[in-house]
Amino acid sequence: MRELEFDELEALAIGAGVLGTGGGNHPHLELMCAQADYLRGRRVTLLDPRELADDARVAVVCIMGAPLVTKERLPEPVAICKAVRLMEEHCGKAFDAIMSIEIGGENAFFALLVGMELGLPVVDADTMGRAFPEAQMASFAIRGLPVTPFAIADIRDNAVLIPVAENATRVERIGRKTVVELGSIAGTCAAPRTGREVKDHAILNSIGRALNIGNAVLDARKAGANPVASILEAENGALLFTGKVQDVSRRTTDGFVRGCAVLSGTGAFEGQRLEIDFQNEFSVARLDSVRIACVPDLITVLDEETAEAIGTEVLRYGQRVAVIALPADPIMTSPEGLALTGPRAFGFDFDYQPFAEKTV
Amino acid sequence: MRELEFDELEALAIGAGVLGTGGGNHPHLELMCAQADYLRGRRVTLLDPRELADDARVAVVCIMGAPLVTKERLPEPVAICKAVRLMEEHCGKAFDAIMSIEIGGENAFFALLVGMELGLPVVDADTMGRAFPEAQMASFAIRGLPVTPFAIADIRDNAVLIPVAENATRVERIGRKTVVELGSIAGTCAAPRTGREVKDHAILNSIGRALNIGNAVLDARKAGANPVASILEAENGALLFTGKVQDVSRRTTDGFVRGCAVLSGTGAFEGQRLEIDFQNEFSVARLDSVRIACVPDLITVLDEETAEAIGTEVLRYGQRVAVIALPADPIMTSPEGLALTGPRAFGFDFDYQPFAEKTV
Repeated sequence: MRELEFDELEALAIGAGVLGTGGGNHPHLELMCAQADYLRGRRVTLLDPRELADDARVAVVCIMGAPLVTKERLPEPVAICKAVRLMEEHCGKAFDAIMSIEIGGENAFFALLVGMELGLPVVDADTMGRAFPEAQMASFAIRGLPVTPFAIADIRDNAVLIPVAENATRVERIGRKTVVELGSIAGTCAAPRTGREVKDHAILNSIGRALNIGNAVLDARKAGANPVASILEAENGALLFTGKVQDVSRRTTDGFVRGCAVLSGTGAFEGQRLEIDFQNEFSVARLDSVRIACVPDLITVLDEETAEAIGTEVLRYGQRVAVIALPADPIMTSPEGLALTGPRAFGFDFDYQPFAEKTV
Repeated sequence: MRELEFDELEALAIGAGVLGTGGGNHPHLELMCAQADYLRGRRVTLLDPRELADDARVAVVCIMGAPLVTKERLPEPVAICKAVRLMEEHCGKAFDAIMSIEIGGENAFFALLVGMELGLPVVDADTMGRAFPEAQMASFAIRGLPVTPFAIADIRDNAVLIPVAENATRVERIGRKTVVELGSIAGTCAAPRTGREVKDHAILNSIGRALNIGNAVLDARKAGANPVASILEAENGALLFTGKVQDVSRRTTDGFVRGCAVLSGTGAFEGQRLEIDFQNEFSVARLDSVRIACVPDLITVLDEETAEAIGTEVLRYGQRVAVIALPADPIMTSPEGLALTGPRAFGFDFDYQPFAEKTV
């Protein structure tokens, strides 16, 4: 257990942006909220999952919604706090710690903000090792743990509890429709987890991974080195493309941001064309129509100069970017993991291939 | 408190069909279910609301969904029983009686079926005095009673609880989206009511009213009299039209059956044309473009010969019908009632006028 330092907040924001793979964007606003909390004397207590008692109760939280909507209707940690309280009432037991369902994007910070608000430590783990658009694309669901009860709340006076459901996908669908009805942004608290379950089935050290990425970027910037290259080195990634955003088709539908971005190559990729599909997060990249990366591997679009992650909701014509791929957690590339997070789970008609192997 | 007799079941079905105003149709299947329960030795205990203790706990139940869907996916009382049990668990208190949210159509019978299944008496009251498409169009909501918690369950293993909400309309919208996700049919248990609340704010004696209508029809049939005229006499109604169904446009959308029926006149109405709009239930009738009846008054389409009610989901070309209007309960025509159940609540741009006064 240790206190997260003020300076680490920025590194975490950069790293969470990269791991966000286009969903949830760089968490600018949430970083500012966390910094403001620090200036008011609050602190994030970071908890190594190994320190969790087996019977500790962990609240797995996130903001559920469409990233584009968060730009006009700011997500509030208070909505998540309400969902956490609702879950405590429903179960008749208090929580001992907070954990984010996903380390990617804004949700990495919401766990911190909720932890500070409720005075609970934040577990250095998540269930995706990145961001994913749907609630069942999570290690706990992949490992077959019960996904209910599931609590949803908004900043007004609305809440929904799903006490039982056939499967994780049903929870996602009922939850998503509820969230759309509440304005496409709501706070959620997923099925409570024990310390033992977190240690056995979560993706561990994901805050550490985000900090590692963020520090690599900050160090490179300070040293005048290339921050994109620093990320690839730190995280065993691959450069997929450098280029200019040529076109973005994007629509917010069914509670998601969906679409496709077209990039024209620069530098070593001059004359080539990259297309990237997305559903909140980037899902498939094609170089001159040849598939070169797909979910659950991480595809991230970075500002070429600063290595700041660019979200699917702010991607626009003219941006000069580097597109990188980072390896997915082994839980995600297991057969059970691919069933819930592989290309077919996103509606594509092909199987997963790691990004190193280029496919036709 | 008295036992409902076997022979009364048929009269209740006829009356509930008439009070269904097109929504939920004549409850054929549910009548058969109830009769089968009787043959197995079960009985409905009918409870006069005045017999309720002030602190008795009443479960207000219904099947929520689109009538058209009930023809291919039969609604099950077990779904409602699950919602009732969920509510009991949530509140930590058992129910003393069952009551239908609406006396119109199939839901009149679901209260009976649930009462027999759970061994609880059924209160002779409802919250609409008819059928309405949306959950907030109810006397308890009109009188400002809290509408949460609200429980929804299906016949599989899915359930949703709405512990709090801003208002009744929000409960309806969240509930409706959940029901659509569950296949457009689910069982619900609305906010528990005390005996005092039922006595003060429910529409009393609505099962009695349905029995009265049903008996009038059965007696007329036996006596070779006109059963449509018998209903009008028994319930202070008006004959709006007799004619033939010429055209029906109908779509199932957002969990409702919506559309419009066009009828060409016969007999005294020869040469005239009636249009009736519906959203699950009939909402507005226009005779040669002149509005002659609208919600919350009851507009019902009956088979001209048998006075059997015809639902919006089975209305079709060639049917020879009588269209009648019956007066709404005074709770519905109060200013607060009209705000939730008048034409404007159905999206129309005009105010309520009782069906006796013809409007342009």
